[in-house]
Amino acid sequence: MSGHLRLVVTNAMLDGEAVSLTALDGVITAIGPDAGGNSPATADSSLESLDAGGGILCPPLINGHTHAAMTLFRGHGDDLPLMRWLQEAIWPVEAKLEPEDVYWGTRLACLEMIRSGTIGFWDMYWQPASTARAVEDAGLRAVIGPPLFDAPDKTFEERNRELEGWLDELAGFGDRIAAAVAPHAIYTVGTASLEYAVGLAADRDLPVHIHLSETEGEVNDCVEAHGMRPAAYLDSLGMLTPTTTLAHGVWLDREEIELIADRGATVTSNPVANMKLAVGGVFPYPEAARAGVPVALGTDGAGSNNSLDLLADLKVFALAQRHAAADAEAIPKDEAWGVATGQRSALIGGLGRPALPASDPLTVGAPADFIVLDPATPELALGNLASSLVYSATGSAVKDTVVDGKVLMRDRQVDGHEEILTKSAERARRLGL
Amino acid sequence: MSGHLRLVVTNAMLDGEAVSLTALDGVITAIGPDAGGNSPATADSSLESLDAGGGILCPPLINGHTHAAMTLFRGHGDDLPLMRWLQEAIWPVEAKLEPEDVYWGTRLACLEMIRSGTIGFWDMYWQPASTARAVEDAGLRAVIGPPLFDAPDKTFEERNRELEGWLDELAGFGDRIAAAVAPHAIYTVGTASLEYAVGLAADRDLPVHIHLSETEGEVNDCVEAHGMRPAAYLDSLGMLTPTTTLAHGVWLDREEIELIADRGATVTSNPVANMKLAVGGVFPYPEAARAGVPVALGTDGAGSNNSLDLLADLKVFALAQRHAAADAEAIPKDEAWGVATGQRSALIGGLGRPALPASDPLTVGAPADFIVLDPATPELALGNLASSLVYSATGSAVKDTVVDGKVLMRDRQVDGHEEILTKSAERARRLGL
Repeated sequence: MSGHLRLVVTNAMLDGEAVSLTALDGVITAIGPDAGGNSPATADSSLESLDAGGGILCPPLINGHTHAAMTLFRGHGDDLPLMRWLQEAIWPVEAKLEPEDVYWGTRLACLEMIRSGTIGFWDMYWQPASTARAVEDAGLRAVIGPPLFDAPDKTFEERNRELEGWLDELAGFGDRIAAAVAPHAIYTVGTASLEYAVGLAADRDLPVHIHLSETEGEVNDCVEAHGMRPAAYLDSLGMLTPTTTLAHGVWLDREEIELIADRGATVTSNPVANMKLAVGGVFPYPEAARAGVPVALGTDGAGSNNSLDLLADLKVFALAQRHAAADAEAIPKDEAWGVATGQRSALIGGLGRPALPASDPLTVGAPADFIVLDPATPELALGNLASSLVYSATGSAVKDTVVDGKVLMRDRQVDGHEEILTKSAERARRLGL
Repeated sequence: MSGHLRLVVTNAMLDGEAVSLTALDGVITAIGPDAGGNSPATADSSLESLDAGGGILCPPLINGHTHAAMTLFRGHGDDLPLMRWLQEAIWPVEAKLEPEDVYWGTRLACLEMIRSGTIGFWDMYWQPASTARAVEDAGLRAVIGPPLFDAPDKTFEERNRELEGWLDELAGFGDRIAAAVAPHAIYTVGTASLEYAVGLAADRDLPVHIHLSETEGEVNDCVEAHGMRPAAYLDSLGMLTPTTTLAHGVWLDREEIELIADRGATVTSNPVANMKLAVGGVFPYPEAARAGVPVALGTDGAGSNNSLDLLADLKVFALAQRHAAADAEAIPKDEAWGVATGQRSALIGGLGRPALPASDPLTVGAPADFIVLDPATPELALGNLASSLVYSATGSAVKDTVVDGKVLMRDRQVDGHEEILTKSAERARRLGL
């Protein structure tokens, strides 16, 4: 499609006021009581309109860590701890993955994210071009990291060529797709490969996305092997930077937190996956927040969560923090909401989007990425909005989802819903799941 | 309405098979591939039919502990610990409650429960006749416990007369409403009043519903005052019986668990409220299950949760157990599902229903209480059903809710929805919330 895309949203509420919103080519051009009345289409533009039905305009959620295609593995090996789950349930099936498996698994993930108000995600998974194609077709945004492992069946150079080929492929997608260098973890990637990843990220100006300190065993092994804890080890390799995100960060001690804050790296907490895999700890949010660590929230893959409803996980995140600290004031609700919407990490919230004038969500000049909450949701009827979003609502409170100025869900209807369920079920059956 | 009520459900799925279901006067009369084809109405019967649209027939959820009308207080004092939340946020507002406040707060709670697949609940709240009226109008079931406190402004006899008056009122409602004797907690009710409660429950053949061991401070105070831990103290008063349910049970030690198991009392866990109020502990489910303690699940009041979506809380329950035990096998998913559906406590699952032939849910002779899951829910598309219900789905997966042979929600539409939102908001405003 050539020409410009205009969007006009009417009949919405923002801060208790009736407003309209207009956008042009994915950027908000006006928002307010008189914003949308007369938006003439021009010869070279197509117009999309959305009647918000009195629903509440709201910043969207950003999923800071997932493996989208793992929707296919939902419920597989449910009651196993992390290492047995990976080795016995997941890795054997992953060895059989074909591109169409990843495509339809990711489409299912995107459907679930659209339905629960998530407009972009940080992914790490095999067949990254299939992921990118699924995200592009779904209309979402993603920062996609092809995983870097130490592979016994390939030379260092072969493995690196494969990875660089994937990154080249990802560069060929549109503006909604960005790439990351994604060394899997310090227990699966050796020092030489981590150093290579640091160089590759610098050469290509890409962010780094790695799992860190998910289990206590990982920390102990790191101390034994390298004489330092995981964050210090990454820092010794130059990997702790403002464009690095560390998924999990469950077992960080105070010195590591200070170090991460000093380097400006992000920690993305995945509380549901951590509790489900019974790692036994909780990311120390209060200490990280005090130190100034940028923080984001992720679901992790649906295989170990098992849902991608970040609004539901936001509640668990806040509950886990209050529980772990035995302190009802451990995480103010506005902060929790900021974490889930990518507003407390410029890296995660940025989603590799082309530079736009820095602006808050839902202001002129910001990307036209937002959700509309259903005003008939009983859980939103009383109390204040931040509290309702953190503690009462699940993703089903989202009525409409808009990304890059396009309406991806309208009154809870998403294009392709039935086909996605059918095709993803076929692919799961093919994998014997 | 006189005469008989017939129900015919067609186009449903059960265990992978297409089935129909019929019920007469709230009891299932047939279920299977050929059950519903020809159900002639008779002169004295009305016929209700439900096309399940290919949805999955499923046992309903039972909320073992809540204070339904507290939906009015949602988001009020969110970031306070238990005692300050009660003393500073809740009790001052409760002092102003009128019957219509409780009625509309409870209607809102019922709306949310119907929408999330809960068909009955154990309540403890003021103005119990207003709660009963709301439950009756909503079509749900409830066991309602008017709270027993030591009241400084009333004599022992005055307070008891008031309570007995409430119990008399509750006895005047229909079969879906039952009553309980509900001493609030050992830290608000003295020994004499607890002994009175035991006698009253025995005299009237009513269950007992009490908060127990919610905070560690409660345990320490009990040991100091009575020389024994809370469960032993209740047992010394004769309160631990198969018709007693103990809400919370966070700080039970092994001896207390053995004692509760021996006496056959139920523990109703409220993991979300416990984590939100930051009590610091988790009900020791694995030990309780091993000892044979009947276990149920509750949301607690929406004021301290802040939702009533028991399907969402079921996930948190399982996650909290896996986390607390640092063991991914801490709670098998089928057990977790049994806990949330009242199948692991005859007391809670019984809901004070008039004796029916003992039977599993969704069998001939069982109450016509069930839910239909939406087959288009992406979270139910892959994996096995028990896993999806525990770990993937939230209440929005429920398409239809049937109680006592009546369809309370049909394709997610509940009668009176708009009026309930309007009226409950009016009542909250009146209370200054």
